[in-house]
Amino acid sequence: MKQIKAIAPATVANVSCGFDVLGFAVAAPCDEVIVTLTAKPGIVVSRITGDGGRLPTDSQRNTASVAIQSLIQTLGYNGGVEVELIKKLPLGSGMGSSAASAAAALVAINELFGNPVSREELVPHAMEAERIACGSAHADNVAPSILGGFVLIREYDPLDVVRVPLKAQLFATLVHPHIELRTEDARRVLKPTVSRKDAIRQNGNVAGLMVGLMTADYELISRSLQDLIAEPVRSVFIPGFERMKQLAKDAGALGCGISGSGPTLYSLSVSQEVAQRVGEAQANEFRSMNLASDIYVSEINYQGATCVK
Amino acid sequence: MKQIKAIAPATVANVSCGFDVLGFAVAAPCDEVIVTLTAKPGIVVSRITGDGGRLPTDSQRNTASVAIQSLIQTLGYNGGVEVELIKKLPLGSGMGSSAASAAAALVAINELFGNPVSREELVPHAMEAERIACGSAHADNVAPSILGGFVLIREYDPLDVVRVPLKAQLFATLVHPHIELRTEDARRVLKPTVSRKDAIRQNGNVAGLMVGLMTADYELISRSLQDLIAEPVRSVFIPGFERMKQLAKDAGALGCGISGSGPTLYSLSVSQEVAQRVGEAQANEFRSMNLASDIYVSEINYQGATCVK
Repeated sequence: MKQIKAIAPATVANVSCGFDVLGFAVAAPCDEVIVTLTAKPGIVVSRITGDGGRLPTDSQRNTASVAIQSLIQTLGYNGGVEVELIKKLPLGSGMGSSAASAAAALVAINELFGNPVSREELVPHAMEAERIACGSAHADNVAPSILGGFVLIREYDPLDVVRVPLKAQLFATLVHPHIELRTEDARRVLKPTVSRKDAIRQNGNVAGLMVGLMTADYELISRSLQDLIAEPVRSVFIPGFERMKQLAKDAGALGCGISGSGPTLYSLSVSQEVAQRVGEAQANEFRSMNLASDIYVSEINYQGATCVK
Repeated sequence: MKQIKAIAPATVANVSCGFDVLGFAVAAPCDEVIVTLTAKPGIVVSRITGDGGRLPTDSQRNTASVAIQSLIQTLGYNGGVEVELIKKLPLGSGMGSSAASAAAALVAINELFGNPVSREELVPHAMEAERIACGSAHADNVAPSILGGFVLIREYDPLDVVRVPLKAQLFATLVHPHIELRTEDARRVLKPTVSRKDAIRQNGNVAGLMVGLMTADYELISRSLQDLIAEPVRSVFIPGFERMKQLAKDAGALGCGISGSGPTLYSLSVSQEVAQRVGEAQANEFRSMNLASDIYVSEINYQGATCVK
């Protein structure tokens, strides 16, 4: 009975000026998936822990099994698969929870078959899982969760996934306030058009961010981390958003924004110490509003999902 | 009598997806400016050649003298300056003619004073000349003409000029058809808003272009060289534009677009031979429409404006 366990990291999509095109992976937390090849055809989600009973065990609706289904169909495998999911990522937090489960599942099953499929080629299968989980087959969480580092989704038609060669050494802070935010609401507030001026400034910033990341120009990264498209309309969903950003800056962060479609806030910093300070400052501020929150501080994940013994 | 001659290169602004934020310098053609310090206070444009009598000798209206005026005011110099301008760039072509004269003038006078001002700090003075020449103090021609290479104007308020560390080795083709195109018309057709979808795709492309330029990923450069903001509305001013682009691609170019606000077309290629073929194919096509054109083929200029003995 062949069995492998893989872990895949949380990810930050919509990295400010990189709204809808850029995501990155953090070292922790990671979802864990144990995949077993079985004799009996069909995919079975045998067990899920850590989700508080909120995730579906129906293999047509679980992101881990949907991703596996998409891959084994391509590979022509007709045997059975058993999937066990150990959730470490909070659900609906904007930290790429559904993506991490799909990424870990794919890396595990690919390893079981001797890695016939490249990391890049796994991405579209994980996107099928996103389609089930959030209604849109977006790649800006699954690609960094599978590949690690900062990943650019240059284009969807056809899909063009670009690893950004990172020279900057960065630490991420994720602060997840315990509030509900529906992705549909976050999408609905987006305006269908953007002023040409803002579109061009967003362009300048995302180009500046690329240069900053690739040359370790931290001041340039900091100046570039602005979002003129999503943040102005989505920040209203996050209590005290402008204060949270200022606290991050005051604590020394290079920048702060909404992770994915929220409510988690991400910040980037040059050291673990600064990243920790940022998290504590924001969590304190949430606490002053009677909101509990979780702090995750880690460096950037450079290798993406990995198999563990 | 202290005298120095400097040359400054033609530049391509609005580099497709880098509309309004990215420009680059080519090795040739270059404008030449001879600057002489004189005893008699005031700036005099003593001679202009190569402009067919079209440029103003009034020192308040000539871009070379306006740029010098802006700089010497900052330096507190109260003596006189004589400026001679040898135009090699075609006027009103979209090749950064006004910018090249200003850039050469600034580099020459700065050298005469022992370079008290850095290259980056010269940019705002050249922008004053652009304000006189085209009514807007844009930096995407003057910055690459002064600095060389690919230059990103991340932001104007405050000005943030970013040199893009180039790993790709590129050759540029400029084909200048002899048609009149007023910059005001080219600006007027731009729409005040952009669909969010196009804004995001432009973002993906400009980010992809940065990664491609900095990693010498020529296929990525090629896929990224698309403009969804200006080209769709401006291309109508250029006869046979879509055919011209196709001819460039067929000849092996990585991409082709409008240089500045036109009518010159720029293409980028991986060799001098391909760049030459692109130019001939496009010039032939213009000829078939009874339009004369000039072809300029050269590599990217890496050092910007320079003093010559």
